[in-house]
Amino acid sequence: MELTHIEHIGIAVKSLEEAIPYYEEVLGLKCYAIEEVKDQKVKTAFFRIGQTKIELLESTAADGPIGKFIEKRGPGLHHMAFATNSIENALKEAEEKGVRLVDKKPRKGAEGLNIGFLHPGSTFGTLTEFCEKPG
Amino acid sequence: MELTHIEHIGIAVKSLEEAIPYYEEVLGLKCYAIEEVKDQKVKTAFFRIGQTKIELLESTAADGPIGKFIEKRGPGLHHMAFATNSIENALKEAEEKGVRLVDKKPRKGAEGLNIGFLHPGSTFGTLTEFCEKPG
Repeated sequence: MELTHIEHIGIAVKSLEEAIPYYEEVLGLKCYAIEEVKDQKVKTAFFRIGQTKIELLESTAADGPIGKFIEKRGPGLHHMAFATNSIENALKEAEEKGVRLVDKKPRKGAEGLNIGFLHPGSTFGTLTEFCEKPG
Repeated sequence: MELTHIEHIGIAVKSLEEAIPYYEEVLGLKCYAIEEVKDQKVKTAFFRIGQTKIELLESTAADGPIGKFIEKRGPGLHHMAFATNSIENALKEAEEKGVRLVDKKPRKGAEGLNIGFLHPGSTFGTLTEFCEKPG
């Protein structure tokens, strides 16, 4: 499997409106996009830092994955995403090596990326995502 | 404040011995160093991926910060570390802007870096570290 860099770090927050000023005014990053991902029941805000993006995630429904995460654990680090040039191969290889997949096939994520998640139960507790730029 | 990239992502694990093979054999990363940081009661394992490192953290004592974290929340993502060329300025600026610091002054962390932590209570739930290469 060839993973090239950390594509993004996903962080659950209660409110984008409250958290964005901290990332902009304290850390000096710039929010360059806000996007709603309806099937995940989240609104996301993106910041670039070097090769990586920070993706803040605000739940749009209490029963969505981020709503449930915050209820259980509070806001904070949610997932880690690796960039790959071949997500099909990366998911296939992980599964062959015994990793339980959340997504058996790539699906569309924020920013038009092809994405797939590995289950934290077989990655030593870290919800892990693979991302591939389409085309 | 000028933060250049994600220096590392810190991940709490129950056992380096159990987790390292997943990072090496499934994700294809290479563990290039194992280091004990006695005052933090942890043993760390490092992997490079692009500009960033993954730092696995195993507690060496139940009453250490990682031992307590795992007891409360289970293993998984623990902290996010930004690289900066001036940690003194970065900590000072964060404090001036109302962020509560864990470390008022830089201290030595793993790999000889000068490091300082911000308190998750004033960073919207994410334990956040600044790192500076000495010299």
